[in-house]
Amino acid sequence: MDAAERLARQLRFIIEADKLKEVFRQSLCSQSRRQENDAEHSWHLALLVITLAEHSNVPDIDVARVLKMVILHDLVEIDAGDTFAYDAAGAADQKEREARAADRIFGLLPDDQAVEFRAIWEEFETRETPEAKFASAVDRLQPMLLNILTDGTSWKKYGITHDRVVARNRTIEEGSEKLWRCMSALLDEAVAKGDLKK
Amino acid sequence: MDAAERLARQLRFIIEADKLKEVFRQSLCSQSRRQENDAEHSWHLALLVITLAEHSNVPDIDVARVLKMVILHDLVEIDAGDTFAYDAAGAADQKEREARAADRIFGLLPDDQAVEFRAIWEEFETRETPEAKFASAVDRLQPMLLNILTDGTSWKKYGITHDRVVARNRTIEEGSEKLWRCMSALLDEAVAKGDLKK
Ligand SMILES: [Ca+2]
Repeated sequence: MDAAERLARQLRFIIEADKLKEVFRQSLCSQSRRQENDAEHSWHLALLVITLAEHSNVPDIDVARVLKMVILHDLVEIDAGDTFAYDAAGAADQKEREARAADRIFGLLPDDQAVEFRAIWEEFETRETPEAKFASAVDRLQPMLLNILTDGTSWKKYGITHDRVVARNRTIEEGSEKLWRCMSALLDEAVAKGDLKK
Repeated sequence: MDAAERLARQLRFIIEADKLKEVFRQSLCSQSRRQENDAEHSWHLALLVITLAEHSNVPDIDVARVLKMVILHDLVEIDAGDTFAYDAAGAADQKEREARAADRIFGLLPDDQAVEFRAIWEEFETRETPEAKFASAVDRLQPMLLNILTDGTSWKKYGITHDRVVARNRTIEEGSEKLWRCMSALLDEAVAKGDLKK
């Protein structure tokens, strides 16, 4: 592949990625209360990473790698769509749909980058390294925070209880016990306010 | 400051930053053709950085630092608003409005982080380091790309000519001569297609 073709493939990937701005989530933005999209969400996660990295259980994680994970983690949803955290039916074939999407979307890149970016995405999904655990922690923390800021609107809409929120999100403590303790206290407050059912 | 107050201030900053999702730009998203917001734009820049960093004039730039710049660079627009690239009147007091916004918004953070993040933002604005030059290059390249993908809609709307696009954006070559050559060719194509006035 010559240099021009290499850059052309990179641009094709960047242009394809623009579609992430049209994949809408169940979270509401705190101000307008419209649905958040995956691109905004990914940016917000990146901001959480650089602000909160000091709270990782494992000190001195590779912040650049965590940033790459959160920037790339939702691209597969361009094809696979957003699977709501509490949607068991959607979760059944989610892995397969997302793997196919990863083949297609990362496959737009020059081969070496396709391999590199896909490995970053798989590391995020597998949640074994300290970096992936921290990236996953902020990915779970951020929608809870938006729910709290919008009076539990999407919890109420789907009748999600405190138990289910805890069951889904307590893996945050694998990335950061400190952040999980803090979120846990905020969830108790949400229950006390009536924004989240006991 | 104790640990709880430190985390509380970090969360206040993260919550304030959610407002960036409501700051709309002149660029249109390629798919829906609605106006792009600053949060989506910042995510897209981060994706450009990790995909295109190899094209920096200076090899081996600090990609983590460039990512921090693009993640933080538009937060001041929460207070100062987006100043359209070709708005000379808005540009007159832009620096002052943005400096005041930086004081307030980065000032929400614990002091050490307020200083660190503000320094990153100022490095981006000053455009002297190789990292800032590359961050600025992608910040100029991305809106041009969206304009090209949407048949020059925002160029046409404001009667922007090829000369002005070149005058504004050729600083891209300070970050990456290769990316500027590529964009330059795409601008010529846009002129040939009638999407950009000669
Ligand atoms: Ca800007």
